[in-house]
Amino acid sequence: MLEKKMFPVSLDRVQVEGEFWKEYMELVRCHVLPYQWEALNDRIEGAKPSGCIQNFRVAAGLQEGKFQGYVFQDSDAYKWLEAVAYSLMWHPDPELEKTADETIELIGKAQQPDGYLDTYYMINGLEKRFTNLMDHHELYCLGHMVEAAVAYYKATGKRRFLDIAAGYVNCAYEHLGLEEGKIPGYPGHEVAEMALCALYDITRDQRHLKLAQYFIDQRGQKPLFFDLECQKNGNQCYWDDTYMQKQYYQAGLPVREQEQAQGHAVRAVYLYSGMAEVAAHTEDAGLFEACRRLWDNITTRQMYVTGAIGATEHGEAFSFDYDLPNDTIYGETCAAIGLVFFARRMLEITQDGKYADVMERALYNGVISGMSLDGKAFFYVNPLEVNPEACQKDYHKRHVDLTRQKWFSCACCPPNAARLLSSLAGYAFEENPRELYVNLYVGGVLDTVKDGKANRLRMETRYPWDGQIRIQVENTEKTPFTLALRIPGWCGRYSLRVNGELWEGTPEKGYARLDREWENGDQIQLELEMPVRLVEANPKVREDVGKVAVMRGPLVYCLEEADNGDQLPQLYLAEEPDFQASYQPELLKGVVAVRAQGKRVSQAGWGPERLYRTYTGKRYTEAALTFIPYYAWANRTPGEMLVWVRI
Amino acid sequence: MLEKKMFPVSLDRVQVEGEFWKEYMELVRCHVLPYQWEALNDRIEGAKPSGCIQNFRVAAGLQEGKFQGYVFQDSDAYKWLEAVAYSLMWHPDPELEKTADETIELIGKAQQPDGYLDTYYMINGLEKRFTNLMDHHELYCLGHMVEAAVAYYKATGKRRFLDIAAGYVNCAYEHLGLEEGKIPGYPGHEVAEMALCALYDITRDQRHLKLAQYFIDQRGQKPLFFDLECQKNGNQCYWDDTYMQKQYYQAGLPVREQEQAQGHAVRAVYLYSGMAEVAAHTEDAGLFEACRRLWDNITTRQMYVTGAIGATEHGEAFSFDYDLPNDTIYGETCAAIGLVFFARRMLEITQDGKYADVMERALYNGVISGMSLDGKAFFYVNPLEVNPEACQKDYHKRHVDLTRQKWFSCACCPPNAARLLSSLAGYAFEENPRELYVNLYVGGVLDTVKDGKANRLRMETRYPWDGQIRIQVENTEKTPFTLALRIPGWCGRYSLRVNGELWEGTPEKGYARLDREWENGDQIQLELEMPVRLVEANPKVREDVGKVAVMRGPLVYCLEEADNGDQLPQLYLAEEPDFQASYQPELLKGVVAVRAQGKRVSQAGWGPERLYRTYTGKRYTEAALTFIPYYAWANRTPGEMLVWVRI
Repeated sequence: MLEKKMFPVSLDRVQVEGEFWKEYMELVRCHVLPYQWEALNDRIEGAKPSGCIQNFRVAAGLQEGKFQGYVFQDSDAYKWLEAVAYSLMWHPDPELEKTADETIELIGKAQQPDGYLDTYYMINGLEKRFTNLMDHHELYCLGHMVEAAVAYYKATGKRRFLDIAAGYVNCAYEHLGLEEGKIPGYPGHEVAEMALCALYDITRDQRHLKLAQYFIDQRGQKPLFFDLECQKNGNQCYWDDTYMQKQYYQAGLPVREQEQAQGHAVRAVYLYSGMAEVAAHTEDAGLFEACRRLWDNITTRQMYVTGAIGATEHGEAFSFDYDLPNDTIYGETCAAIGLVFFARRMLEITQDGKYADVMERALYNGVISGMSLDGKAFFYVNPLEVNPEACQKDYHKRHVDLTRQKWFSCACCPPNAARLLSSLAGYAFEENPRELYVNLYVGGVLDTVKDGKANRLRMETRYPWDGQIRIQVENTEKTPFTLALRIPGWCGRYSLRVNGELWEGTPEKGYARLDREWENGDQIQLELEMPVRLVEANPKVREDVGKVAVMRGPLVYCLEEADNGDQLPQLYLAEEPDFQASYQPELLKGVVAVRAQGKRVSQAGWGPERLYRTYTGKRYTEAALTFIPYYAWANRTPGEMLVWVRI
Repeated sequence: MLEKKMFPVSLDRVQVEGEFWKEYMELVRCHVLPYQWEALNDRIEGAKPSGCIQNFRVAAGLQEGKFQGYVFQDSDAYKWLEAVAYSLMWHPDPELEKTADETIELIGKAQQPDGYLDTYYMINGLEKRFTNLMDHHELYCLGHMVEAAVAYYKATGKRRFLDIAAGYVNCAYEHLGLEEGKIPGYPGHEVAEMALCALYDITRDQRHLKLAQYFIDQRGQKPLFFDLECQKNGNQCYWDDTYMQKQYYQAGLPVREQEQAQGHAVRAVYLYSGMAEVAAHTEDAGLFEACRRLWDNITTRQMYVTGAIGATEHGEAFSFDYDLPNDTIYGETCAAIGLVFFARRMLEITQDGKYADVMERALYNGVISGMSLDGKAFFYVNPLEVNPEACQKDYHKRHVDLTRQKWFSCACCPPNAARLLSSLAGYAFEENPRELYVNLYVGGVLDTVKDGKANRLRMETRYPWDGQIRIQVENTEKTPFTLALRIPGWCGRYSLRVNGELWEGTPEKGYARLDREWENGDQIQLELEMPVRLVEANPKVREDVGKVAVMRGPLVYCLEEADNGDQLPQLYLAEEPDFQASYQPELLKGVVAVRAQGKRVSQAGWGPERLYRTYTGKRYTEAALTFIPYYAWANRTPGEMLVWVRI
């Protein structure tokens, strides 16, 4: 049956304790959220004022002023509130909750009598609302508002924000649709689709699901709404001059007819997540088939080894199959986050570990590469190869930064990372009444009720630094349920013991399913062998021919100038290297670094005076290569970086 | 002594007969020039009207109308007249000369009483003249007018055009300079500098040389004139937001302080050519040192193996040392032509064959690659690696065309190629009273007077298809002079015989100097061994690590999809290939194609469903590789192309 077969555990039932993720979650809680609150209130010295909270005050009539910031400035407040909601669930904080409540009250004060709530139009003229759905992000803000309101309701049980959001949704429902007198439009930037499904799960108000379904079904139908809107507004769509045209918005074709992930990557994976939600909520097999097809296109044609997506800066977009340039990549942090969203939904519907594999790949590499180890700086763009001089002097690489930036005028990635990281336990652990799925090995304590009985699982692991995972069951009554442990796709050999006894079953769709009556004190030992391994790309990926990527466990590794000198493209890895992997507590907040034999193209005979010469054969000098986890790059002296190394 | 030590032979004394270049010259004469004349007169059906001739008519008061085209539209007429002049010298054509005379008369009618002559300002308002030297190309048009006038005077002996041009130059001299009341400006797009030196060589009017010298000396002096001009005009320099800033115009520093070729590549090499001219005319050793430095920077850091320059589309510019991407390259045909201009001047001053080597490299590769084999279509951009899908879908490669275009709204490269090709003999043969230099082996008949006696040299060769060159001397009196034959830098082994006797001398600076009394019937046989050879790039060129280029004689070779299938980056050349080079009369109008053993990365196990897998070692299938001369690419079915092949 086409439906979600499992759901994230409630975040208040998990304490993540594994040092790897706990560190990130605490950075978000202690640094990112407070910093962002200051930013939203224009209290960061030297930074361009956000105007976000002020916009709500102006819209509410509490102060005079003009609208400030981007048309989607409201969404910053919503993303912050969503991350706060998650954080409150695993770390209650009455003061933070009070600030959130006050912010929600302010938002409520700004709401129009008919439920409308977008400060850009409320300040600049309500008569213009819903007239530029293509580019003005009204429904994007609505989507983020809903996501935040749902999270806040789950965190606190308070309905106020949920009611505000539902009010705006109902207003949108009155104005948008195919019925006589309504605007036959849909979001220019998707996110509302998945948000509305989450809202419906709580409200069970059919309008909420119907609106999501309508957004999905109407998208890309001919005549294109965005064309009609442009005609009406007498403006031109910027993307019509590119090969993407309306596919920039994934609106060039009905979504069921889309074969290839195209256009703005964040928009795309947000849409596909919404499609998966609607498919699961409406048992729409055709729509789910489109999700599968788009998933396959991304993961077998358009995804970097780091889980990054969006090969081109132009439109921050997917480009075409097998086009995965490492140095001009966009690979936005938010797009990798969106891929995690999409993956989780596909996983929830199929319970197939291949989706969790991609989720893990993106999380451990392309997502957290976006954040500095001190949580204070962020990348939008996550390249796989960097030449510092090119970032400065090659216009086509000007979007590639060498160092993470403190904050952004368009503050999209940092709060998006914040809401993902603070809700990480929901990605790691999912359940239904009979099953508990461990998708990610994060370590910590989880409480769950199965068969009406309280069970506590303690998971200890140093993952991703090693593959030893111990789980202990604590309960007062024997409890029958299935504990499904993911055997990662990257793992070639593993052993699994329950109370010391070797499990000899076969994983189903990537999960070892332990179905038994669990007793207090039951011990599970999972050992995922984690050798350093080499990965090659499909030879249709032009940039990666003759190269390999080094991986260990879920982590992609890279070479950095700090360890290997400059001119990294001159380095070759030995054909059968003897890898030395060792945990280095002082390095980059503690990482397993990998050393291997390699060689460097010989410089002999190349004075500064020669650019070309008769080929003299392959000549190398020996070189020891040091690899660090990709996510941790750019936390030392700025310099070159390289993932795909010649072999 | 710092001066030019040789000069191009007069074009009316040479009949080029070698089939390779004769073909190009006839294409220019019979197709390009007539076609361009139609274009200048807006008679090409379906093409956007040029307005060029009409602008002169409007400016002359012969008809009503607005200015049409680019601010530099006048230069199209001048480039056409220059090419016509060269053509008339080796192929007299009274009708063509009449058309040219009439055009010159029209230009003369448009000239202002004070000599000023730029139709953009004459039509749009003379009060604005000389107010936007940075971007409005007034002095660029002046430069091309002068170049054309000098050529036309040499071709016909008629002074009319020369007087018109000198009139405009003298007007510019009155208005530009450091003297009180003058505008301390210089050209935004260089070319006038070298043109004025050529004018001075005829007029011996000191003002003409002084203006050239002033343009060179004042360029980049602080405070920057272009900054002052922008302030005055209240506008902003587009390039100030890039790392280039005023170096886009080579005007960020005094030219003597410029260490690196920077900015718009065509502008740059035009400037350097002008600097070499002024240095030679004024015995300015410091200025010549700057020329040498910039030359070295280009040829040892920033030049493609094809002689293409200008690594980046952004600003059609040089980027930085060793940055030579093969697929996002600009490599404008005009820039390679400009490099030929620069090379010839350095050669004339130094008589050092290393400059002729670069001249030959650019001519046989990066210049003629700009023109289709039928002379009807042209490339602006000359890439070394092309993936058709990327040209369409990668915004950063949108400037790279798969097929040459019929004409251009900005018709810069085709007429520039025309004027170079129709004056080719002047690059091939240079002389002074005591010496005749053969820089290029083009084949044909040359008349020269040495020691007061008429001498005719007949050169027979199939160069570049083989390295056999026969020269016969014909005279009625024995004549003492030096015949200096270039031994190309690419040539590892050669033999030279005079009347059958082996020459055992040592070339000086790349030239075998045969200094003797030449008698009627003297025979010279030069055999340049021309094996296929492999070339490697300095390992600092990231794009070319692990790759080689195939060359034979002066020609760079490439792989095309038509011969080798698609996915060319999957191909490897054998480490020690046994090359088969054979002339194929039916292929691409007759070329020597090169075949060699190679291999292709194995596709085994790569279904469409996989993007990454565990590395399985190096696996290949055998593949026979076929290389064609680079200049001839894109004359068959459009497809992939690749110069640097993996080895």
